[in-house]
Amino acid sequence: MKARVTVTLKAGVLDPQGQAIQGSLKSLGFAGVGAVRQGKVFDILLEGTDEAAARADLTRMCEALLANTVIENYAIEIVP
Amino acid sequence: MKARVTVTLKAGVLDPQGQAIQGSLKSLGFAGVGAVRQGKVFDILLEGTDEAAARADLTRMCEALLANTVIENYAIEIVP
Repeated sequence: MKARVTVTLKAGVLDPQGQAIQGSLKSLGFAGVGAVRQGKVFDILLEGTDEAAARADLTRMCEALLANTVIENYAIEIVP
Repeated sequence: MKARVTVTLKAGVLDPQGQAIQGSLKSLGFAGVGAVRQGKVFDILLEGTDEAAARADLTRMCEALLANTVIENYAIEIVP
């Protein structure tokens, strides 16, 4: 089974990297660019076919390692 | 308009960061974890409401700055 975990900064958390990208895009001529926020994706291969069990495992992986839940949100998606 | 650009390593490109995460997950007790690949997401606010124009702009942003197209793929998604 294949899963995609997307980790993004919570609203209100400063994102200097996103701001730098926004500045670069503007200086490249993309005038209509507003806020840019950068996050991470993890594409994870999992053994087994039980989607509920996979989601439970992935939630524990996010809480333990993949996301800093103080400042980051995560979204889990099972890829068919 | 809000867009999400997802940048992932092409198949075959070595991903040491993903391998390190895979190792960490295994040592945390997640035995069923196979390959892990890490990528990036960019959440971008754009002025205007023309979706086709936004997609064209985003493609140019990816080619110019957001992705290294030698080793990375990108996917553009307009968030409603």
